[in-house]
Amino acid sequence: MSTWFPHAIKDLVEALTAFPDVGPKTAAKYVFFLKHRPQAELDSLANLIKTLRDSTSMCPRCFRTVDKLKHGEMCNICADPKRDQQTIVLVERELDAEPLDRAGYTGVYFITGSLLYAQKGLQKASIASSKHSIPFQRLTALGKRLRTEPVRELIIAFNPTPQGDASAAYLAAALARTGIKITRLGRGLPTGADLRYADTETLQGAFRGRTKL
Amino acid sequence: MSTWFPHAIKDLVEALTAFPDVGPKTAAKYVFFLKHRPQAELDSLANLIKTLRDSTSMCPRCFRTVDKLKHGEMCNICADPKRDQQTIVLVERELDAEPLDRAGYTGVYFITGSLLYAQKGLQKASIASSKHSIPFQRLTALGKRLRTEPVRELIIAFNPTPQGDASAAYLAAALARTGIKITRLGRGLPTGADLRYADTETLQGAFRGRTKL
Repeated sequence: MSTWFPHAIKDLVEALTAFPDVGPKTAAKYVFFLKHRPQAELDSLANLIKTLRDSTSMCPRCFRTVDKLKHGEMCNICADPKRDQQTIVLVERELDAEPLDRAGYTGVYFITGSLLYAQKGLQKASIASSKHSIPFQRLTALGKRLRTEPVRELIIAFNPTPQGDASAAYLAAALARTGIKITRLGRGLPTGADLRYADTETLQGAFRGRTKL
Repeated sequence: MSTWFPHAIKDLVEALTAFPDVGPKTAAKYVFFLKHRPQAELDSLANLIKTLRDSTSMCPRCFRTVDKLKHGEMCNICADPKRDQQTIVLVERELDAEPLDRAGYTGVYFITGSLLYAQKGLQKASIASSKHSIPFQRLTALGKRLRTEPVRELIIAFNPTPQGDASAAYLAAALARTGIKITRLGRGLPTGADLRYADTETLQGAFRGRTKL
């Protein structure tokens, strides 16, 4: 930002450029939008931001963000006896879980909060210490959950990227001796795709994942 | 948003989807980004939003947003004797003015805050009452400025869109009898353009705006 804009605007633009995929131009657009909103709306937005963390809890079992829980309480999905509590989907981010639920998934979740890179061999220590590792307490919690609960299947639903694939392969190897069934979401052509424009990797996945008619 | 997310998240997502070009997915991405920031950062952001309006002023002459002004004071550009105070650029939005300054413009500005549609004939009343009109007090302020100041040239720098063109033509007609020189920014090929991909309108503008070598 040049010296063109006043301090209050520059400071807010700078704060908003920290948001994911927001550059100075987008941030300035947001700030001038806000500048023309009524003060009551700005107060309300400011209050929502200020109280965001305090007004939510993290489910101690699946690590989803939920409405304030009482001590020891689990989220509505983890506590729901109608859901299959023995099938766990492992996702990197909370936002990845919601579309799965919308697609009709009726098991439970575990949010890793991050991927993990399998670059340093198979030592548990290297997973936990890598910069891209699943936070240590999440890994510990997952291990404990798999040991203490009657888990039938762990469906790894990391994004189908090289990092997601490496992390999934790594986890599958690390958990092989637990005897738990470990799967990944199927790969192939997205609905509506055009074969002419499909990339090689996707087509290879579709061949491997072909189903009997 | 489904019932998947807690209230505090849904409310903030909803507030952020009011931002220009922000849909529910982008808003959710912003909210989860915020959720993982330190509380001090959230407090600071909330405070910048809350105080945005009170910590800025609008220049009474050009309607730019600037640092807090004393009563009767003008902005740094309007008050700058080194700038050409007799040449006024008319822009729709404040964000349109900054790139002109960066391009070396040394006159002054007037922000209309909106375009105007020239659909209802040339009556002044219809400009002021149209939904897309320049706010009435801006139009009044512009008229007063053109009457009371020794203005040499009014450069209309609305965006080169049908609405911008119509508004410019309309203003030029309405101000014809003032005798002030009224111009528009030149039309033509943007630097770096490829003739093969230029659209007809742009090429027609480039023909009309051709310069002698």
